[in-house]
Amino acid sequence: MASLSAGPEIERLIQLLAKLPGLGPRSARRAALALLKKRDLLLEPLSAAMRDAAAAIKTCEVCGNLDTVSPCSLCRDERRDKHLLCVVEDVADLWALERASVFRGKYHVLGGALSALDGVTPERLNVMSLLERVKHGVVEVILAMNATVEGQTTAHYLIDTLSASGVKVTRLAHGVPVGGELDYLDEGTLSAAFKARRSM
Amino acid sequence: MASLSAGPEIERLIQLLAKLPGLGPRSARRAALALLKKRDLLLEPLSAAMRDAAAAIKTCEVCGNLDTVSPCSLCRDERRDKHLLCVVEDVADLWALERASVFRGKYHVLGGALSALDGVTPERLNVMSLLERVKHGVVEVILAMNATVEGQTTAHYLIDTLSASGVKVTRLAHGVPVGGELDYLDEGTLSAAFKARRSM
Repeated sequence: MASLSAGPEIERLIQLLAKLPGLGPRSARRAALALLKKRDLLLEPLSAAMRDAAAAIKTCEVCGNLDTVSPCSLCRDERRDKHLLCVVEDVADLWALERASVFRGKYHVLGGALSALDGVTPERLNVMSLLERVKHGVVEVILAMNATVEGQTTAHYLIDTLSASGVKVTRLAHGVPVGGELDYLDEGTLSAAFKARRSM
Repeated sequence: MASLSAGPEIERLIQLLAKLPGLGPRSARRAALALLKKRDLLLEPLSAAMRDAAAAIKTCEVCGNLDTVSPCSLCRDERRDKHLLCVVEDVADLWALERASVFRGKYHVLGGALSALDGVTPERLNVMSLLERVKHGVVEVILAMNATVEGQTTAHYLIDTLSASGVKVTRLAHGVPVGGELDYLDEGTLSAAFKARRSM
């Protein structure tokens, strides 16, 4: 690819934008151009917002969530049931559950999933702090891992590790997504939905 | 959608990221999380790169290109043929042609395309400066608008406007894209490719 002859500043901006999830080299170039064309409306405010967020946002020392305070507002919320602990891989999963308003207990963010390929061992996840939290009045641990190989490996590992503590461990049901068409679902999902069928 | 309870800083960051082309609300959330998780590797360098680019990059006073100098390095390049002027809608189009290394003349960036719907009139495009440049030794104006309704409207307008100057006006050929399969092409492209067929 020929150089853009537009200075190293643009090249560097494009390279860094391309590291964002969802942006490839081509869309990063379009994003860089949009930023430079809308400096007052987009580039300056975004740069400021990034600085503000970096300064304000902390990782919660209790659950691993991101918030302006630590412990985070979810951990501080007395109305949430502290007997229920929902374990997720990532902050994005916590946000997804909060958007759906399906859970009113506390969370625990592992910070990833076990992966032999990527060298993610239990020591690199927030497992020790989970075991410690479980000792203090937790009645049920709900494993809300992704339905991927890594997620399910992590769930199995946690089921084993938590068995000694005697706490009740559950996990999310597999099945047909609401609005999903059977024709488009994989065999694993269909099989899981059949096995977990309910009488009406 | 429930609030994330993660502070207004994250919300603002997500809102601004969602304004980038190629990022929607969902991918902006993922991008914000990626930024906050990789502060040293991604957020800080990107913020700095945006400031650097904003400070360094100017709009070329001659052609409308973005560069660290004005007139831009393409306008300054004596090896480029100043008798040929390629008119594009946007800097991104100029970059695309430069990457393909298909043109060794000078450029003129209109800054958009005529659009009644979006209220883009000729006065809002760099048309006056184009007419002025054409007076100074330009032999051929190559219209390289997008093959959209707006792009072709703009091309027709420029053909009319430039006719008084007596300069030769050409435009890019329509046809089958290299590597393209006929089966996947629209009727307009197939029709254009047929009309412009060449004897071998």
